Amino acid sequence: MRGYPTDHAGLEILPFEECLRLLASVPVGRVGFIADGELVILPVNHVVDGQYVAFRTAHGSKLSAAEGQNLATFEADHYIEQTRSGWSVVVTGSVEVVDAEADVRRLTCRGLHPWVTAVQHPFWLRIRPTSITGRQTPRTE
Amino acid sequence: MRGYPTDHAGLEILPFEECLRLLASVPVGRVGFIADGELVILPVNHVVDGQYVAFRTAHGSKLSAAEGQNLATFEADHYIEQTRSGWSVVVTGSVEVVDAEADVRRLTCRGLHPWVTAVQHPFWLRIRPTSITGRQTPRTE
Repeated sequence: MRGYPTDHAGLEILPFEECLRLLASVPVGRVGFIADGELVILPVNHVVDGQYVAFRTAHGSKLSAAEGQNLATFEADHYIEQTRSGWSVVVTGSVEVVDAEADVRRLTCRGLHPWVTAVQHPFWLRIRPTSITGRQTPRTE
Repeated sequence: MRGYPTDHAGLEILPFEECLRLLASVPVGRVGFIADGELVILPVNHVVDGQYVAFRTAHGSKLSAAEGQNLATFEADHYIEQTRSGWSVVVTGSVEVVDAEADVRRLTCRGLHPWVTAVQHPFWLRIRPTSITGRQTPRTE
């Protein structure tokens, strides 16, 4: 299999469509945002909806502080320790509430079942991406 | 097995020593920092050295921009999709260069073999933690 072009560190640069495919292939990613002067990184269950990454949270939660932020990042990755290989995709953009009824209905039908079930009054947030980039360790096969 | 106390979302709050043990149990974590006005999240191979989390990077790399930052975060997690369970540990603090010869020697002896091997002139960074916290999904057994 022919690899992708590599960056200065020798990592393969993933095409946009492959980034979206990989993002959707894992059940957990991590949202990074600033809250109370700290850089927070929180794992979330997510779904990919077009070019958006959507996830649920609860009013008053730490994650809800990400709402409206223009400086948010979502990262997902997967690695295999035995082969010392893996990929990582990073989405940067702004975080917005999903409030249009049709959007909420579509996301709800996507079958996201958050692993944390004690969340009260959940609502959807999504990242409106300004960039989606990905890297993977070079394939050797 | 008796669980740990839970937070408002129903996640168990991990004790400090358990956080350090879990951090050291995985080969990959993610460093979050601000660079060029963007919130960057980058996977790295890391080692736990006392209460520090250390990793290598190259001069001129994106990650090298984390040096000296007071607002950095390191996150590691592990999850099992089948059981919808997992843990996450977050270290916040400042990023500093490891330059004392004894420290560099000790870290080098720890056997970190970064998966990205094209890195030229690597050097060590570490996070001096101001907080180390962790959560896990409730154990049901």
